[in-house]
Amino acid sequence: MARKVRRSPKMLTKPDNEDEFYHQPASIPGTIIIPTDASPPQMTLIDYNTRDVIRKQIKTPEECASYLDTASVSWVEVQGLGDEGILRRLGNVFDLHPLVLEDIVNLVERPKIEDYEDHLVIICRMVVPKEKKYGFYSEQVSLVLGKNYLLTVQEEPDHDCLEGVRARICNNKGIIRKRQADYLAYSLLDAIIDGYFPVLEDYGEQIEDLEEEVMLNPSRHTLQKIYQIRRELLQLRRYIWPQRDAINSLIRDGSELISEEVRIYLRDCYDHTVQVMDMLETYRELATGLMDVYLSAVSNKMNEVMKFLTVISSIFIPLTFLAGIYGMNFSTEKSPLNMPELNWYWGYPMCLAVMAVIAIVQVLFFWRRGWFKNFSKINPDAKI
Amino acid sequence: MARKVRRSPKMLTKPDNEDEFYHQPASIPGTIIIPTDASPPQMTLIDYNTRDVIRKQIKTPEECASYLDTASVSWVEVQGLGDEGILRRLGNVFDLHPLVLEDIVNLVERPKIEDYEDHLVIICRMVVPKEKKYGFYSEQVSLVLGKNYLLTVQEEPDHDCLEGVRARICNNKGIIRKRQADYLAYSLLDAIIDGYFPVLEDYGEQIEDLEEEVMLNPSRHTLQKIYQIRRELLQLRRYIWPQRDAINSLIRDGSELISEEVRIYLRDCYDHTVQVMDMLETYRELATGLMDVYLSAVSNKMNEVMKFLTVISSIFIPLTFLAGIYGMNFSTEKSPLNMPELNWYWGYPMCLAVMAVIAIVQVLFFWRRGWFKNFSKINPDAKI
Amino acid sequence: MARKVRRSPKMLTKPDNEDEFYHQPASIPGTIIIPTDASPPQMTLIDYNTRDVIRKQIKTPEECASYLDTASVSWVEVQGLGDEGILRRLGNVFDLHPLVLEDIVNLVERPKIEDYEDHLVIICRMVVPKEKKYGFYSEQVSLVLGKNYLLTVQEEPDHDCLEGVRARICNNKGIIRKRQADYLAYSLLDAIIDGYFPVLEDYGEQIEDLEEEVMLNPSRHTLQKIYQIRRELLQLRRYIWPQRDAINSLIRDGSELISEEVRIYLRDCYDHTVQVMDMLETYRELATGLMDVYLSAVSNKMNEVMKFLTVISSIFIPLTFLAGIYGMNFSTEKSPLNMPELNWYWGYPMCLAVMAVIAIVQVLFFWRRGWFKNFSKINPDAKI
Amino acid sequence: MARKVRRSPKMLTKPDNEDEFYHQPASIPGTIIIPTDASPPQMTLIDYNTRDVIRKQIKTPEECASYLDTASVSWVEVQGLGDEGILRRLGNVFDLHPLVLEDIVNLVERPKIEDYEDHLVIICRMVVPKEKKYGFYSEQVSLVLGKNYLLTVQEEPDHDCLEGVRARICNNKGIIRKRQADYLAYSLLDAIIDGYFPVLEDYGEQIEDLEEEVMLNPSRHTLQKIYQIRRELLQLRRYIWPQRDAINSLIRDGSELISEEVRIYLRDCYDHTVQVMDMLETYRELATGLMDVYLSAVSNKMNEVMKFLTVISSIFIPLTFLAGIYGMNFSTEKSPLNMPELNWYWGYPMCLAVMAVIAIVQVLFFWRRGWFKNFSKINPDAKI
Amino acid sequence: MARKVRRSPKMLTKPDNEDEFYHQPASIPGTIIIPTDASPPQMTLIDYNTRDVIRKQIKTPEECASYLDTASVSWVEVQGLGDEGILRRLGNVFDLHPLVLEDIVNLVERPKIEDYEDHLVIICRMVVPKEKKYGFYSEQVSLVLGKNYLLTVQEEPDHDCLEGVRARICNNKGIIRKRQADYLAYSLLDAIIDGYFPVLEDYGEQIEDLEEEVMLNPSRHTLQKIYQIRRELLQLRRYIWPQRDAINSLIRDGSELISEEVRIYLRDCYDHTVQVMDMLETYRELATGLMDVYLSAVSNKMNEVMKFLTVISSIFIPLTFLAGIYGMNFSTEKSPLNMPELNWYWGYPMCLAVMAVIAIVQVLFFWRRGWFKNFSKINPDAKI
Repeated sequence: MARKVRRSPKMLTKPDNEDEFYHQPASIPGTIIIPTDASPPQMTLIDYNTRDVIRKQIKTPEECASYLDTASVSWVEVQGLGDEGILRRLGNVFDLHPLVLEDIVNLVERPKIEDYEDHLVIICRMVVPKEKKYGFYSEQVSLVLGKNYLLTVQEEPDHDCLEGVRARICNNKGIIRKRQADYLAYSLLDAIIDGYFPVLEDYGEQIEDLEEEVMLNPSRHTLQKIYQIRRELLQLRRYIWPQRDAINSLIRDGSELISEEVRIYLRDCYDHTVQVMDMLETYRELATGLMDVYLSAVSNKMNEVMKFLTVISSIFIPLTFLAGIYGMNFSTEKSPLNMPELNWYWGYPMCLAVMAVIAIVQVLFFWRRGWFKNFSKINPDAKI
Repeated sequence: MARKVRRSPKMLTKPDNEDEFYHQPASIPGTIIIPTDASPPQMTLIDYNTRDVIRKQIKTPEECASYLDTASVSWVEVQGLGDEGILRRLGNVFDLHPLVLEDIVNLVERPKIEDYEDHLVIICRMVVPKEKKYGFYSEQVSLVLGKNYLLTVQEEPDHDCLEGVRARICNNKGIIRKRQADYLAYSLLDAIIDGYFPVLEDYGEQIEDLEEEVMLNPSRHTLQKIYQIRRELLQLRRYIWPQRDAINSLIRDGSELISEEVRIYLRDCYDHTVQVMDMLETYRELATGLMDVYLSAVSNKMNEVMKFLTVISSIFIPLTFLAGIYGMNFSTEKSPLNMPELNWYWGYPMCLAVMAVIAIVQVLFFWRRGWFKNFSKINPDAKI
Repeated sequence: MARKVRRSPKMLTKPDNEDEFYHQPASIPGTIIIPTDASPPQMTLIDYNTRDVIRKQIKTPEECASYLDTASVSWVEVQGLGDEGILRRLGNVFDLHPLVLEDIVNLVERPKIEDYEDHLVIICRMVVPKEKKYGFYSEQVSLVLGKNYLLTVQEEPDHDCLEGVRARICNNKGIIRKRQADYLAYSLLDAIIDGYFPVLEDYGEQIEDLEEEVMLNPSRHTLQKIYQIRRELLQLRRYIWPQRDAINSLIRDGSELISEEVRIYLRDCYDHTVQVMDMLETYRELATGLMDVYLSAVSNKMNEVMKFLTVISSIFIPLTFLAGIYGMNFSTEKSPLNMPELNWYWGYPMCLAVMAVIAIVQVLFFWRRGWFKNFSKINPDAKI
Repeated sequence: MARKVRRSPKMLTKPDNEDEFYHQPASIPGTIIIPTDASPPQMTLIDYNTRDVIRKQIKTPEECASYLDTASVSWVEVQGLGDEGILRRLGNVFDLHPLVLEDIVNLVERPKIEDYEDHLVIICRMVVPKEKKYGFYSEQVSLVLGKNYLLTVQEEPDHDCLEGVRARICNNKGIIRKRQADYLAYSLLDAIIDGYFPVLEDYGEQIEDLEEEVMLNPSRHTLQKIYQIRRELLQLRRYIWPQRDAINSLIRDGSELISEEVRIYLRDCYDHTVQVMDMLETYRELATGLMDVYLSAVSNKMNEVMKFLTVISSIFIPLTFLAGIYGMNFSTEKSPLNMPELNWYWGYPMCLAVMAVIAIVQVLFFWRRGWFKNFSKINPDAKI
Repeated sequence: MARKVRRSPKMLTKPDNEDEFYHQPASIPGTIIIPTDASPPQMTLIDYNTRDVIRKQIKTPEECASYLDTASVSWVEVQGLGDEGILRRLGNVFDLHPLVLEDIVNLVERPKIEDYEDHLVIICRMVVPKEKKYGFYSEQVSLVLGKNYLLTVQEEPDHDCLEGVRARICNNKGIIRKRQADYLAYSLLDAIIDGYFPVLEDYGEQIEDLEEEVMLNPSRHTLQKIYQIRRELLQLRRYIWPQRDAINSLIRDGSELISEEVRIYLRDCYDHTVQVMDMLETYRELATGLMDVYLSAVSNKMNEVMKFLTVISSIFIPLTFLAGIYGMNFSTEKSPLNMPELNWYWGYPMCLAVMAVIAIVQVLFFWRRGWFKNFSKINPDAKI
C-alpha cells in the first residue's frame, strides 16, 4: 500500500506508526486498509452495574451483542486492528456507518466527534511516554458511546494509560460503578488527556537541559536536539488542538447520550485540555527562542575564537617583523649606516627589550579592552 | 497575451502552467482567453444508472444534450481547452453564465463554489505527483453539477487522479451506480482532495532528507532546496485553503442539488481537507525551521574552520618568531651579550626543545578546551 | 503645508505623490488642501444609452448638471485636482457632503465606501505599471454613483487603466451600453482591480530574478532590491486590503443603487480582489524568505573565503616556520649539535622534500574534507 | 511612591512621564495619587453659543458651576494635575464617580470610553512632535461630555495640539459655534487623532534615513536608532489601538449625548484612526525589516573585511615562504646540492621574477572572482 | 508522586512551586494530592459589618460554620495546603463539589471562574516581587464567594499582597465595611491584579538595563538574561490571559451574587488586567527585539575584532616579506645582480624608508575607510 519503500534509519527518530496509510486517491469511500504489521484484535468485555462486574475476553464480536441492551454498562474494548473480517462484524454489531469504520481503522484521522443520533463517535489520540528515554508512543483511540454501552478501539494492546480506569471499575473505587456509560466515556477521555502531562513534563525537562547546553557548550548535537523537540511538539499540537474542539462540541452540542452531570465533569476535562495546550505553546515558544539563542551562542563562540587568533597574531606578527629586520643581510662593512645596531654592544638585549615592550603594551591593550576576561571566563565552562 | 517574453530556464523549477493569463485590465467581463499551447478538447460521455452504463467519446457538445434530461446520471468530461468555439457551445448546452465560462477557462482561478439555482459550479485544483522526481503537476478542474448531470472540465488530458472513479462506475464497484449525480460529484471531489496526500508525503520525505543534509553537510544546494520546498508548499496552500471554504459552504448552504446523505460524505471529505491543511502547515513550519537550522549549521561550520585556522596559526606563529630571533645577525663577535646562545654547545637542541615545549603546551591547551574533539567529530560526517 | 523640506534624492525610489498632505491637526473638518503641483482639472462628459453616445470636454461643472437627471447614463470624469473653486462647484452640482469632498481631494485616503442614500461614494486606488522599469504609478480614484450618473475623480490625467472601458462605451462593445450607471461603476472597479495583476506579475518576475541572484552572487545591491520589493508590496497591501472590504460591503449592504444583476458581477470582482491579495501575500512571504536566504548565502560565501584563507595559511605557515629554522644562525662550528643538517650533503634537498610532504599531506587532508570541491564549485557561478 | 530610585541618564531616550505611578496593590479604589512634579492646575472656561463667546481663566472649580446648566456650550479646560483638593472639588461639581476621577489623574490609563448615563467619559492620549529633534511629547487627555458642557483635563499646560479648535471657537470659523458640545468633543478628538500624523511622518523620514545608513554604513549607532524607533512605535501603538476601539464604541453604542450628525463626523474621525494604525503597522514592519537588513549588511561588511585579509595574506604568505627558503643557511660549500641558486649569476633576479609571477597569478585569480570589484565598490560609500 | 527526581541547581532560576503535581493519568476525578513540602493550613476568620469587626485564628473548619449564615460578611482565609483532612472538612462546610476542591489544591490550575448557583469559584494567580533581586513569587489563590461569606485559599502564608485589604477592613478605611462579600471579592481581585504592576515594572527596568548592556558590551551573560526574561514573561502571560477571561465572564454572566454596583468596579479591574496584558506584550516584543539586537551586536563586535586583525596583518605581513627578501643569502660576490642593495651605502636606510612608506600608505588607506574611527569609538564603551 505504501507508495515508496522507506529508506531505513533516519537521524531524527519519529514516534511509531506515523504518516503511513493515507487515503489512496479515488478509493471507494469506506474502504478499510489494514496495515500489514497490525496486531490481531484482542477483545475484552467489561459489564458492570453498582453491584456486579464481569470482565472477560471475547472471541467474536457477536458475543457481546447480548450485553448491549441490558441496563448494565457494557464496555467492549478492542485492541489491535489486524483482522478486517472481525472489524466489519464489529461494525454490524454496533451498527456503524461505513465511514465511521473507515475512520476507526484509518490511523492518522484527526481527533473529532460525530453525532449519529443513537451513538456518538469520538476519535482521539493517546500518548504514552517511553520508559527509558525521551519521546512518546502515540496511538489512536476511537470511542463509540451508545445508551448502555461503550466501544473503544485501540491500535495496539501495549502502552496504554487506561489501566487506572479499568482498576477503578473492577475494584469499585470512586463513583464510576454508580454512573452510566457516559461517565465511563468521560473517565477514559480524562485519562487520555491527563496522559499528555507526563509527556509534556519530559519536554519541559529536556528544554531546561538544552538551555544550559546551548549557552555553555553549543554543538551540532544541540542543534539537532532543539530541532527534534520542535518537530515533536508540532506533532503533539496536531493531536491536541482538534481534541479540544471535539470535547468542546461534546459539551455544547447537547447530545442526549451525555447527562447534565457528566457535562460538568467534561468541563473539567476541557480545562485540562486547554492547560495542555498552554503548556505546549509555552514549550514551543521556548524551543523557538532556543534556536535564536543557539545562533547567538555560536556567534559568541566564534567571537572568542577570533579574539584568540587576533591576540596571538597581533602580538607575534610585529615581533616577527622586527626579528626579520635584524635578519637582513645588509653589509655592515660597506656602510656605517647599514644596520649598525648589529654591532652594538647592547644590540641584542636592546632588541629583546623593544620586543618585550611591544608585547607588553599589546597585552595591556587587550587586557584593558577586556578580551582576556571574556576569554578566561569561557574556559572552565567549556570543560564541563 | 503575455506581457513579456519569459526569459528561459530558471534555477528554481515551477509547476507547469502557473501565473500566466491573468485578467487583462478593462477587458470585457466574460472574455475567454485560450492559451496558445492548449490541447484541443476531448469530450467523453459516461451515462449510467443502476443497471446500464454507456461510455463514449463525443465530438460536439450538442451530442450530449439529449442525455442531460434523462433520469440516468450523465457525466460529460471535457479535457483540454484549445477551442473557443466548442467551449462557447458547451456554455450554451449547459446554460452557463458568461462569467462561469470565463472562470472555467481562466486557469488561475481561486477554488470556489457558485450556486446558480439549477446548477452548482465548483472550481477546484487537482495535483498529481510527478512520477520520476519530486514536484507535482497542477491542473484546474471545474465541476458543473445539475439535476441529472455533471460536467467536468480539465485543462489537460494527462496526469489525472480520477481514473479510479471512472473504473468504479464502469465496473460497478461500491455504491456509485446506485447514487445520483451529487454522489458522483462528491466522489470526484474526494479523489481530488485525496490526491494531495501523496504529494504532501513526498514533501515529508524531502524534508526528512534535508534535515540530515542541513545538519551534516550544509551546502548552497541545500539552501536552494529548502527555499524551493517553501515556495511549493506556499503554492499548495493557495490551492487548498479556498478549497476548504468551498467544501464547507457546499455542506452548509443547503443547495437542493445535494442530498442529505451525500452531505454526510462531504463532511468526511471536509475532514480530509482539514487534514491536508494540517499536514501542509506542519511541513511549512518544519521548512521554516530548517532555514534557521541551516543558518546555524553554516555558522557552526565556519566556527570549525576558524578553529582550525586559529590552532595552526597559534602554534606556528610563535615558533616562527623564535626561529626569526635566532636568524638575526647580531654580531657575536662584537659583544658577548649578542646572542651568545648561537655559540653554545647545546644551543640548537635547546632551541628546538623550547619550541617543542611551546607547541605541546598549546596543543594541550586546545585539547582541554575541546577544540580537537569537536573538530575530529565533524570529520567523518563531512565525508559522507 | 508640508512640515519639512524633503531632502532630495533617496536611494530607494518611491511611487509618486506618496505620504504628503496628511490632515493638519485641528484644521476645520472638510478643509480642502490642493497640492501645489496638482494638474488643472480636465472634465469629460460621456453620456450614453443603448442607441446614442455623447463624449465631450466640459469647461465648468455646471455644464453637466442638465445631463444628470436624464434617463441616459452620464459619466462625468474629472482628471486633475488643481483648482479648489471648480472642485467646490462640483461638490454643489453633485450635492456632496463637505467630508466627501475632503476625502476625494485628500490623496492618501484609505479605500472605502460611504452610502449617502441618494449616492454612493467609492474611494479606491488604481495602480499602473511603469513602462520601462519595475515599479508602478499609484493614483486615487473616487467614484460617486447616483441614480443615472457616475462621477469619477482622478489625481492625474496620465497613467490610466480605464481606457478600455471608455472604448467599450464609445464602440458599443459588450453589454455596457445596455446597462445602467451601476454596471459602469462595476466596469471601472473591475478594470482598477485587474490593473493590479500586471503590477504583481512584475514583482513575481523580479522575485524570480532575485532568487538566482541571492543564491549565486549575493551583493549589497541584492539586499537593497529585496528590501525595496518588501517595501513596495507593503504599500500595495495597504491599498488592496481596504479595497476588498469596500467591495464586500458594496455586495452585502444592499444599496438600492446597485441592481441584483450587477451584484453578481461584483462578486466576480470580489473574487479577483481576493486573488490579488493571495498573490500579494505569497510574494510577501517569498520576499521575506529571500531575506533569510540572503543572510544564509552571505554566511556561505564568508565560509568559502575563510576556507581559502585557512587553506593558504595552514599550508604555508608551517613551511615558513621550517624555513625559519634553517635560517637560524647557530654556529655549526662551535658544536656538532648545532644544525648539522646545514652541512649535510643532502641537507637542502631533504629539507625541500620534507616541505613537499607537509604540503601534500595538508592538501590531501583538505581535499578529503571536501574543502576544494565546494570551493571550485562556487567559482564558475561567481563569474556569471 | 516610586518603588525604586530610577538610575539616571539612559542611552535610549524616552517620552516624558512614562511608566510611573501605576496602581499600588491593595490601595483603596478611587485613590488619587498626584505626581510630585505635577504642574498646578490652570482652569479656563470657554462658554459660547452662535452669537457670543466668553473665554476666561477661573480660579476655583465652583466658578464654572453656574455655566453648566445654561443652553450655551461650556468648555472647561483643566491643564495640570498638581492639586488634589481642586481635582476632588472638580469631581463634585461635575458629579464624577470616584473611579473616573482616579482614571483622569492616573497618567497611564488605557484610552477608553465609559458611559455614565448623564455624561460620557472619554480618555485618550495626545502626542505632539518635539520641535527640534525626533520624538514626541505624550499626554493623557480626559474628556467628560455632558449635555451642555465639556470638561477636558490635560496633564500639562504645554505642548498642545488643540489651539486650532480654540481659535475656531473664538474667531467663529467653520460651523463649530453653531453646534453643541458633542461637536466640540468631536473636534477635539479629531485634532488629537490628526496630531498623530506629523509624529508618524517624522518616523517615516527617520526610517528612510536609516534605510540608507544601514545599507551603506551600518554602525552600532544605526542599530541603536532602529531599536529606538521600534520601541517608540510600539508605544504609539499602545496609544492608538484602544483609541480606535473607544471611537468605534462611541459611534455604535448610541449614547443620547451624541447626535446623529456628529456620528457622521465621528465616522470620519474613525477612518483617520484606522489610517494612523495602517501607517503605524507599515512603519513597524519596515523597522523590523531594517533589523534583518542590518544583520545582513554587517555580515556583508565582515565579508569584505575577510576578503581583504585573505587577499593580503594569500599573496604575501607564499612569497614570505619563498624568501624564507633562500634565507636558510645550508652550506653551499659543503655540497653542490645545497641551494646552488644562491650562487647563480641570475639567482636573485630569477627569485624576484618567480615571486612576481606568483603575486600576479594570485591577483588575477582574485580579480576574476570579482573580489576586488566588490571591494572597490564599497570604498566610496564608506566615505560618505 | 513526582515522576523523576529533579536534578538540582539549574542555571536559569524558576519561580517556586512550578510545574509539579500535574494530574496523574486515570486518577479518580476529585483526587486531592498534597505536595509533601506544603505548609500546614493556617485559618483566619474576619467577620465584619458596618459597625463591628472580628478577626481571629481558627483551628477547625467547623468553627466558622456558625458565622456563614449571619448577615455580617465572613471572610475565611486559609493559607497553606498541608493537611488533606482539613481541606476535605472545609469542602463539607462550604459544600464544595469534589472537582472544585481538586482545583483549589491542584497548584497549576488555569485561572478560571465557575458558577455553582449558590456560590462562585474564582481561581486566580497572585504574583509578588522578590525583595532583594529580580523575579517574583507566584501563588494560586482560590476565592469561593457565597451570599454572606468569602472563602480564600492560598498556597503559602508568606508573600502576600492582600495585607492592604485586611488593613482597610480592620481600620474601616474606604467603603469596604459598608459593602457586601462581593465587594470584598472585588477588592481582593483588584489587589491581586494590581500586584502585577510592580513585577512588570521590574522587568521594564531590567529590559532597559539590558538594552544598554546588549549594545555596549554583549556577553554570554547578557544572552542568558534576555532568555530568562522571555521565559518569565511567557510564564506571566500564562497567568494573566485566562485571568482576563475570568473577570470578563464575571462581569457579563450576571450571577446574582455580584451586585450591579460591584460590576462597575469590576469593569475597572478588567481595565487594569488589559493594561497588564498591554505592558506584558510590549515587554515581550522588546525582549524579542533585544535578541535580534544581541545577534547584530555580536556580529558588530566580531567585525571590529576582524578589522583589528586585518589592520595588523595587512600592515606587517608585507613588511615582513620585505625583511625576508633582504634576509636571503644570495651571494653578492658571485654576481653583481645578486642583491646589490645589501652593499649600497644607503641600502638599510632606504629599505627602512620603503617599509615606512608602505606602512603609512596602509594606515592612511584604513584611516580614510574609517576603520580606525569605528574602532576607537568602541574602546571607551568597552571599558564601562
